[in-house]
Amino acid sequence: MNQPKYHVFVCSSSRINGKQMGYCAKNGAVEIIQKMMMAIQEEDLTNQVMLSNTGCLGVCQQGPIMVVYPEGTWYGSLTVEDVDEIVESHFKNGEVVESLEI
Amino acid sequence: MNQPKYHVFVCSSSRINGKQMGYCAKNGAVEIIQKMMMAIQEEDLTNQVMLSNTGCLGVCQQGPIMVVYPEGTWYGSLTVEDVDEIVESHFKNGEVVESLEI
Repeated sequence: MNQPKYHVFVCSSSRINGKQMGYCAKNGAVEIIQKMMMAIQEEDLTNQVMLSNTGCLGVCQQGPIMVVYPEGTWYGSLTVEDVDEIVESHFKNGEVVESLEI
Repeated sequence: MNQPKYHVFVCSSSRINGKQMGYCAKNGAVEIIQKMMMAIQEEDLTNQVMLSNTGCLGVCQQGPIMVVYPEGTWYGSLTVEDVDEIVESHFKNGEVVESLEI
């Protein structure tokens, strides 16, 4: 496999039974995923950043949740307004956005 | 965050619109997730191994797909019969199952 530099996971509250139920999806996670996918493409980062949606990541009360591997950075209480800063700082410049870490 | 030693992602073909459509879900991915969750609990690895389901991981033709972080190991063409070997070799003994890597 051609390993991406960053593999980004955002909870979309997707259960394995096919239902979508949970805190993150009800609080803007889908819009965050859509905006981040667009930002990754606009910044020409598609070869470096892979974006995946997930089921519950276990810390719903701090959602919407994003995890970035391989470093294992956990971001929480995200809004669509946070997407550009994460893309610019973390994915383009390699600097974790500490104010959004949980 | 209390970072797990291994964060395991298995594609459950979960789209961000809440639908579950795709190769992995049609080819046993949900059963793989269920068996792995049980194996993690039976082997008392819940403090070390976190298991999440995901949307499409982009290599459907090699599915069902599993990715293990932080090392970034990609496993493919999985069946429920492969679960015990991955848990025993990779999660308990730290040795990647090379025969299942893609």
